[in-house]
Amino acid sequence: MRGRVAEILASRSRPGKLRGMRTVAVELGERSYSIQIGPGRLAALGAECARLKLGRRCAILTDANVGRRYARPAAASLAAAGFEPLTVTLPAGESAKSLKTFAACHDQLAAARLERKSFVVALGGGVMGDLAGFVAATYLRGIPFVQVPTTLLAQVDSSVGGKTGVNLRAGKNLVGSFHQPRLVLADLAVLRTLPSRELRAGLAEVIKYGIISDAALFRRLERELPRLLKLDAGALAAVVARSCEIKAAVVTADETESGLRKILNFGHTLGHAIEATAGYGRWLHGEAISVGQVAAARLSARLTGMPAGEVERVQRLFAAAGLPVTLKLTRAQRTRLLAAMRLDKKVSGGEVRFVLARRLGEVVWDQPVPEPVLHEVLDSLAGG
Amino acid sequence: MRGRVAEILASRSRPGKLRGMRTVAVELGERSYSIQIGPGRLAALGAECARLKLGRRCAILTDANVGRRYARPAAASLAAAGFEPLTVTLPAGESAKSLKTFAACHDQLAAARLERKSFVVALGGGVMGDLAGFVAATYLRGIPFVQVPTTLLAQVDSSVGGKTGVNLRAGKNLVGSFHQPRLVLADLAVLRTLPSRELRAGLAEVIKYGIISDAALFRRLERELPRLLKLDAGALAAVVARSCEIKAAVVTADETESGLRKILNFGHTLGHAIEATAGYGRWLHGEAISVGQVAAARLSARLTGMPAGEVERVQRLFAAAGLPVTLKLTRAQRTRLLAAMRLDKKVSGGEVRFVLARRLGEVVWDQPVPEPVLHEVLDSLAGG
Repeated sequence: MRGRVAEILASRSRPGKLRGMRTVAVELGERSYSIQIGPGRLAALGAECARLKLGRRCAILTDANVGRRYARPAAASLAAAGFEPLTVTLPAGESAKSLKTFAACHDQLAAARLERKSFVVALGGGVMGDLAGFVAATYLRGIPFVQVPTTLLAQVDSSVGGKTGVNLRAGKNLVGSFHQPRLVLADLAVLRTLPSRELRAGLAEVIKYGIISDAALFRRLERELPRLLKLDAGALAAVVARSCEIKAAVVTADETESGLRKILNFGHTLGHAIEATAGYGRWLHGEAISVGQVAAARLSARLTGMPAGEVERVQRLFAAAGLPVTLKLTRAQRTRLLAAMRLDKKVSGGEVRFVLARRLGEVVWDQPVPEPVLHEVLDSLAGG
Repeated sequence: MRGRVAEILASRSRPGKLRGMRTVAVELGERSYSIQIGPGRLAALGAECARLKLGRRCAILTDANVGRRYARPAAASLAAAGFEPLTVTLPAGESAKSLKTFAACHDQLAAARLERKSFVVALGGGVMGDLAGFVAATYLRGIPFVQVPTTLLAQVDSSVGGKTGVNLRAGKNLVGSFHQPRLVLADLAVLRTLPSRELRAGLAEVIKYGIISDAALFRRLERELPRLLKLDAGALAAVVARSCEIKAAVVTADETESGLRKILNFGHTLGHAIEATAGYGRWLHGEAISVGQVAAARLSARLTGMPAGEVERVQRLFAAAGLPVTLKLTRAQRTRLLAAMRLDKKVSGGEVRFVLARRLGEVVWDQPVPEPVLHEVLDSLAGG
């Protein structure tokens, strides 16, 4: 399957005229859209929506934290281009991804008389993208939406793929739709106000793209990590664009999540289990999948021939990014963790399967992992 | 536009081997499905789902009234074919189309661990189809669903077109998705337990299909009305199939509701306003659009040249079906009615536009109606 991944990833992002500007085209037929990456993109929101000929009325959905800084400039940019934005500010955090908040958003859109040509702007991180996207997917059976992701994680992950949804008590993302945005504006300047812990967590997904399909990206990350942590616009634009390209290529090739798309879950089988058993919110997603990827690399060394030197480099890069690479568990915690892996919604027929690497840039999915090997690797994670 | 309607309606339903059996193919590319019409189709539910290779676990969503009679046979048919059905019984009536019931359905599906290959069966009238369809559209971002419409209205109208959704306080169907069923089983025997008032209300939509695109269907209805009211299977199968064909052809030609699909709203501009101002539930939808169609025919005589004799036949057919053809309004009620028409979500730019007929079987949409002409026709409706 490497051949296929390599082939679909052949197209490259188009560098913009300004330094640190990139555009990634996501090709999905009628639902194609572009991701514009660069410092200051938020200011272009109005002009870009005008270019798409979206309806006059619109709603900016944001959370209290992000809204405090960026709701005004977003609304001002839209107003300057002739739009009439309504701003809906929601509580920050995962708890906003509820049917209750979803219903409240709909009530506000209806009260503001948004029409079929109106649109929704998701201004925030992954939670806001998922929630606002699902609101847009279902208001009057679907209106356009535009994403302005304000975290690195949302820029490289949740803004590509069209997944939207909210949580139920029974589980995360159980209710939702596929609904593609009409445009994504990834403003790199916004990352300056992102807490450092969240920036690092976002890097965990960026590193993942290197491991699953682009050894050159992985090497670039090893080389440029200090510049990235200092938010150098040129370095950031290149890796955000490359990450979006990889995710877009994978998603385009497998919209229905039947095969290839599974490679995006490298490190996620263990990562999700860590998040679920530690109580959501204790670990950031990026932190959980950092340990998960180190574990997956070690499983790969044992099962799919990943060279020991590369496993070492994987661990070193996560550690250099300030991300966790060890996991200390009591016996009870380990039991819960294993149970959570078996409950993961991607499990089919009760058997846990992993995405594993043959080497940097080349992975295989649906790999069975014998329980003793899994225990061995979990043991090794406790030691660092 | 008549040419186009005539052309797309050229395909005819396939008569089945059994008397009173018809199958209508709805051609929507990958999302194509068939509507099977005939007495006793409910008993084939399990076998037909097996033919579609749907997943083992499934949920029958039904209401207290319909469920009392038909949930057991539906579940038995599924179980006999190897499926494991869960039955979810909801309160009867429009109030079930709420986000609260929607959330409760999702909780039950999750508790029963329905998976991506699981499916939902909508067993009931239009309310259940809309609700269960929206649940299926959004559970795990979309799972298959099968419709078993148990009212004539649902069989000829809401089971074709893919519209699903629930109501908000701010209005009906404000939240929803387009989600096509995998199969529709219209069991004509089930109509025997349908209250006569609801059967007649369903006929209002059937008559509409004659007016908007098939004068031969209209003549057949004039001729066979007594047999239809006695639930003769052969007569019913033919008109239900023809109605589904017409709706399917219109919807297929205009999935995005940008033009042609508007003809389905013949009689609905006034009809919706009657429903909205009288308080939902006072008039059945079919009753409101019966008066609405009589009004639209009279407007058509004045504005688009519909022959007076045909207007007369339209009114006579609705009356013969036991449907209302007059509307007595106080001055205050008329004011509210006109305001409701202007608020209808299909209005654009504030001007109320109607679907009007040139003659039986040929309509034009987006027709402006001068206010004095509208008043004249409303005056005439008071007299009968």
